[in-house]
Amino acid sequence: MPYVNIRVTEEGVTTEQKLQLIEGVTDLLSDVLGKDPATTFVIIDEVPTDNWGLDRENITRRRQREAAKKTER
Amino acid sequence: MPYVNIRVTEEGVTTEQKLQLIEGVTDLLSDVLGKDPATTFVIIDEVPTDNWGLDRENITRRRQREAAKKTER
Amino acid sequence: MPYVNIRVTEEGVTTEQKLQLIEGVTDLLSDVLGKDPATTFVIIDEVPTDNWGLDRENITRRRQREAAKKTER
Amino acid sequence: MPYVNIRVTEEGVTTEQKLQLIEGVTDLLSDVLGKDPATTFVIIDEVPTDNWGLDRENITRRRQREAAKKTER
Amino acid sequence: MPYVNIRVTEEGVTTEQKLQLIEGVTDLLSDVLGKDPATTFVIIDEVPTDNWGLDRENITRRRQREAAKKTER
Amino acid sequence: MPYVNIRVTEEGVTTEQKLQLIEGVTDLLSDVLGKDPATTFVIIDEVPTDNWGLDRENITRRRQREAAKKTER
Repeated sequence: MPYVNIRVTEEGVTTEQKLQLIEGVTDLLSDVLGKDPATTFVIIDEVPTDNWGLDRENITRRRQREAAKKTER
Repeated sequence: MPYVNIRVTEEGVTTEQKLQLIEGVTDLLSDVLGKDPATTFVIIDEVPTDNWGLDRENITRRRQREAAKKTER
Repeated sequence: MPYVNIRVTEEGVTTEQKLQLIEGVTDLLSDVLGKDPATTFVIIDEVPTDNWGLDRENITRRRQREAAKKTER
Repeated sequence: MPYVNIRVTEEGVTTEQKLQLIEGVTDLLSDVLGKDPATTFVIIDEVPTDNWGLDRENITRRRQREAAKKTER
Repeated sequence: MPYVNIRVTEEGVTTEQKLQLIEGVTDLLSDVLGKDPATTFVIIDEVPTDNWGLDRENITRRRQREAAKKTER
Repeated sequence: MPYVNIRVTEEGVTTEQKLQLIEGVTDLLSDVLGKDPATTFVIIDEVPTDNWGLDRENITRRRQREAAKKTER
């Protein structure tokens, strides 16, 4: 009966990708710990990029910096 | 000063139902543990059904299967 | 399939009280939202009083202040 | 590598305020515990006021009561 | 920069199994979403069986029931 | 009424440091968002280093690598 919470930034994760995450995590817990898929919860939270901070900045700015670097190359 | 986080799928929970959950949980913690309602937090998260996995599938598909079964009967 | 996380301070909650919380929350979600107890998770976290802050102090100190007030009366 | 989750009610927190929270928390963890900003996560969740309960009521009602009190004065 | 929280009951998960979970989840997020392992957090919480409720009972009792059933066979 | 959850590895955080984190976060939320300290929760979780994964390894091993590098210098 594991509970798994996956938090990622809200950047266009598709339904298909979410299914792959749900299946992948459920299989992993079944394989490693023998947990029953029927009582394995996997919950995906998508967090706006303004609301996620890393290295003192939010991910909106981080992405803008990354994009600017690409165009410089 | 309990903190209670209720996570449910985003399937039309009404404001009135949310109030019943808030009152019910607050009273339960007061009755069982003598906790002060004035510092009891109850936070309800509503998770999209694509983002909630159980038994290797998301709840969107699970509901579709449940609905299909009903029409077969 | 609700997931409910109850966080309280680590102050001697008994197994019996934990069962009352588990039963009470599960029944509340069944009554209010018709949720199936068989897939309702209730997880209780007990947090050391040094690790819980309210009103700029930790609960260890808060309890000491409360105890001192009682002996003054 | 701290993970900090800030949960507040959804009441118009600006991007600038979110940045101040991200910077403030990251600096605090660096100053107090020497944690590396490059692996310090700060995630802000904004919760609808209907979904946040305190003292047996939701914050939508609490705000209405507070506003009514102000106009009475 | 995903944050993944795996909550399981405190029933003897070994260090090696924890490593398999950390590697498995990190690889899954890299494969499915292209996330960088260097900023992928995986945190495992082990919850005492008295503190985990499912189907109106705690897991300590559930395990006792399961064990009793096995000896009956 | 903010709820702030700080998760760090279990590596000897002192009571005094916890108080600094509680005071610092509470003051930050008061300064930036005008939140009332009397209903500001700050909860610190200390996670065993075997249970925290970053970059496909647990922090126990990461610390051992860091220590080995230091002695090489």
